Amino acid sequence: MNHLIPLDNLVAALSRLPGIGRRTAERMAMALVQDDKGLMRILANALLEADDGIANCERCGNVTLSAINPCELCTRHRKDAQILCVVESPADIMKIEESGGFQGRYHALMGRLSPMHGTGAADLRVDRLLGRIADEGIAEVLIALGTDVESDATASYLKEVLSNREVKVSRIAFGLPAGSAIEYSDATTLARAIQGRQAI
Amino acid sequence: MNHLIPLDNLVAALSRLPGIGRRTAERMAMALVQDDKGLMRILANALLEADDGIANCERCGNVTLSAINPCELCTRHRKDAQILCVVESPADIMKIEESGGFQGRYHALMGRLSPMHGTGAADLRVDRLLGRIADEGIAEVLIALGTDVESDATASYLKEVLSNREVKVSRIAFGLPAGSAIEYSDATTLARAIQGRQAI
Repeated sequence: MNHLIPLDNLVAALSRLPGIGRRTAERMAMALVQDDKGLMRILANALLEADDGIANCERCGNVTLSAINPCELCTRHRKDAQILCVVESPADIMKIEESGGFQGRYHALMGRLSPMHGTGAADLRVDRLLGRIADEGIAEVLIALGTDVESDATASYLKEVLSNREVKVSRIAFGLPAGSAIEYSDATTLARAIQGRQAI
Repeated sequence: MNHLIPLDNLVAALSRLPGIGRRTAERMAMALVQDDKGLMRILANALLEADDGIANCERCGNVTLSAINPCELCTRHRKDAQILCVVESPADIMKIEESGGFQGRYHALMGRLSPMHGTGAADLRVDRLLGRIADEGIAEVLIALGTDVESDATASYLKEVLSNREVKVSRIAFGLPAGSAIEYSDATTLARAIQGRQAI
């Protein structure tokens, strides 16, 4: 693909999408060039309209229509509005909403503590979190982060920051996933499931 | 992702890219929304610039700058300019050029005969091919299509169409790929390799 600068630029831009390597980007670019249904322009317009029409909720960080900010999850009635679920990203909010297992408010940190990726405490939306706890009369902060080292570090940091606030701090349970068998579980999952055992 | 129309539209447009399912498109859309380096607009602009700046060569079908049409491969000196290599798509032209194994001209059909996908002879650039054979004094048509049923059907069709023209018709060889062992070759590859055996 030498000397076709617009094609090179398209491949370069597509390569920046998550999980898209150079070869896949080249294949996509060729498919776009060959498409006879105007996909190139349809995709460009969809991107421009999303760029204009979608924003992050100024309160919880969730994605929302630019015209509806704060977002619906922040403003409409929620049974457990005094519980604030802290997640890494808006994608997590969608996942938890889909599960139907939570009826409170959300707060996306927009990242995790990660010295390796240069993400420090100041990069997370912690000040905003503290402000909301006071403003919205939050009684419990539920930390819904994953099980890796960075999530654990972030959870520990949040616990410390919240220790002098009058708020309960909890974290989602770790254990066996639905439909799994002891026999096929890994050691860490089993250890955490045993550690987190509950009276029945 | 209910009610976020611009996001839904973006996911729908991304889903139309080859090899991108709905889940991947959702993940891409979220990454684009979260990206703080303006990737959404960069990608949109790259698409618009490619849509304006890239075209198919009116002669061979290859991708080319809109301003350079017919493309360089059609106009610059080629040692074997009297050999016309027929391929399915511009991506194939790039592959063969990379291989360095061909020094003639190209002709992309923009598809293969495929009743299943509704691609008939009229959808391929066969009239243009016949015109070029006369106009450019082509002595040999080299069919460089793959080994599947649709490619075989297309090759047979081309052979028939070209049978009353004063032109040699050939097809690229099928056999063992480079670096492969008899032991690990599949039956069809071996059968075709034996059928296509050459005197040494």
